[in-house]
Amino acid sequence: MGNPLPSWNEGAAKSAILDFVARVTQDDGPDFVRPAERIAVFDNDGTLWCEQPVQVQVFFLVDRVRQLVVEDPTLAQRPPFKALLAHDLATLHALGKPALMELFAATHAGMSVEAFEEIARAWFAVARHPKLARPYTQVVYRPQVELLEFLRNAGFKTFIVSGGGIDLMRAVAEDVYGIPPEQVIGSSAKLRFELEGGRPVLMKLGELNSFDDRDAKPQNIGLHIGRRPIFAFGNSDGDLAMMRYTLGGPGARLALLLHHDDAAREVAYDRDFKLSPLKDALDRAGEYGITLVSMQRDWKTVFA
Amino acid sequence: MGNPLPSWNEGAAKSAILDFVARVTQDDGPDFVRPAERIAVFDNDGTLWCEQPVQVQVFFLVDRVRQLVVEDPTLAQRPPFKALLAHDLATLHALGKPALMELFAATHAGMSVEAFEEIARAWFAVARHPKLARPYTQVVYRPQVELLEFLRNAGFKTFIVSGGGIDLMRAVAEDVYGIPPEQVIGSSAKLRFELEGGRPVLMKLGELNSFDDRDAKPQNIGLHIGRRPIFAFGNSDGDLAMMRYTLGGPGARLALLLHHDDAAREVAYDRDFKLSPLKDALDRAGEYGITLVSMQRDWKTVFA
Repeated sequence: MGNPLPSWNEGAAKSAILDFVARVTQDDGPDFVRPAERIAVFDNDGTLWCEQPVQVQVFFLVDRVRQLVVEDPTLAQRPPFKALLAHDLATLHALGKPALMELFAATHAGMSVEAFEEIARAWFAVARHPKLARPYTQVVYRPQVELLEFLRNAGFKTFIVSGGGIDLMRAVAEDVYGIPPEQVIGSSAKLRFELEGGRPVLMKLGELNSFDDRDAKPQNIGLHIGRRPIFAFGNSDGDLAMMRYTLGGPGARLALLLHHDDAAREVAYDRDFKLSPLKDALDRAGEYGITLVSMQRDWKTVFA
Repeated sequence: MGNPLPSWNEGAAKSAILDFVARVTQDDGPDFVRPAERIAVFDNDGTLWCEQPVQVQVFFLVDRVRQLVVEDPTLAQRPPFKALLAHDLATLHALGKPALMELFAATHAGMSVEAFEEIARAWFAVARHPKLARPYTQVVYRPQVELLEFLRNAGFKTFIVSGGGIDLMRAVAEDVYGIPPEQVIGSSAKLRFELEGGRPVLMKLGELNSFDDRDAKPQNIGLHIGRRPIFAFGNSDGDLAMMRYTLGGPGARLALLLHHDDAAREVAYDRDFKLSPLKDALDRAGEYGITLVSMQRDWKTVFA
């Protein structure tokens, strides 16, 4: 099949992937896994697309707040809105969780799932990443898009399991990753079935259903997938539980951890990134059998 | 393709199914739906398999209670266990929800998802339906198995959305319906990621996560699937919200309601079945555009 991962450099990480896939797909081999059990899970922010300087979700939230303030200028006087628009993170932090929930409810709730999807799609169509100066649909990592496709061609079912908002990801995951909505797991608001002008819809409520990070990741894999994955890819401590759960079953398994060590082509960070630190997972990768991927060393190309 | 639904009699219901599938799959037709959006949802109890005299889940629970009492005879003195083993439904009812939760916790919690799956598979391998006198894997309706396959051959993705316990269904759904675990949505317990003898597992807790009935059905479709289905099949008022949600989108849609009116080959019941009544959905099927399926008239064969 030629070179299935052209944006990956030869090396330990690429070999680990190719060897693993060869083993689990070899019909008469000792590590064969039937296609239905070839479940691969990927974190999204920092694993499939750029999460620096802040996650795409945060850019979306800020743009939505700006739009809401245009529609209702009195909002600008509410403390969380005021702090956010002034980039006053100290005040935002001091206002705490209720302030974040107020911003979240204003931008991600009070509308049907379908209405939110329209807003999200419209935003993705025009918004641009301020640092990378391109549409958010183009801040995805090319080696990962190749990997997703390689796995699917080898009979894997690919899932996203991310702390990002489930509906925002679902609005683009099919186009940019080839992953349909039913294979996207993320943080979610509670939904309420109701009639909107006589039409049955699902309303997004301003109440958290699940914050899909750390232990919640394997727990949501249990709820949504119901099968232990055999392949996991993450980039932060938030993915460690999911990687350990993946590695904890019998037979051949592979967990990969992306290390952002490429200041020239992207960003170099790990322990110091407050929004999603990489510390425990990096220190204990060897102990847990997690394969490290160096962006600098292992990726020939970063962006598409 | 010959006769794709041999266990269905010719008639309005079969025609509605064949016409609908022809319309949404006709490439250049006005009702074409691309394959990724061909989502079909099925209730399980009373729709895909028999739910009389009680649901399969209840038989499982009773057998598990019996087994637990063998292992720990003191349990037999606890009021909910005592009432259940004596078939004393009046006392069980009087003990109320805490008693049911105690039975649920004893039989469905306190073990890993994988340990439960083993118990469930072992039970399905030997247990027999007392009334139909056959394994529970053979109380499924043959016309529905044909329909599931027919839909999948037409590019549909088939899901179960049931009030039944998600893990019990997942233990058989692939074998009996060809539906993998990640396409099974059901009632669920909370899960906790933890180490069991050093091995990362998901523990089933004695606390309800979701009771997947009525409004919770479309709400869980929103969470798990993230797309409005275009096809729904149910048999009780518990399925009405899911059917209305399915019918509430644009384009061609089909919702079917199975009426158990066949005392000779199965059971005749609707309004009077306390565990899962069919009343509102039957009375308002016409108003909502739901197609009625008569087991007696529309099914040539009932069981496999």
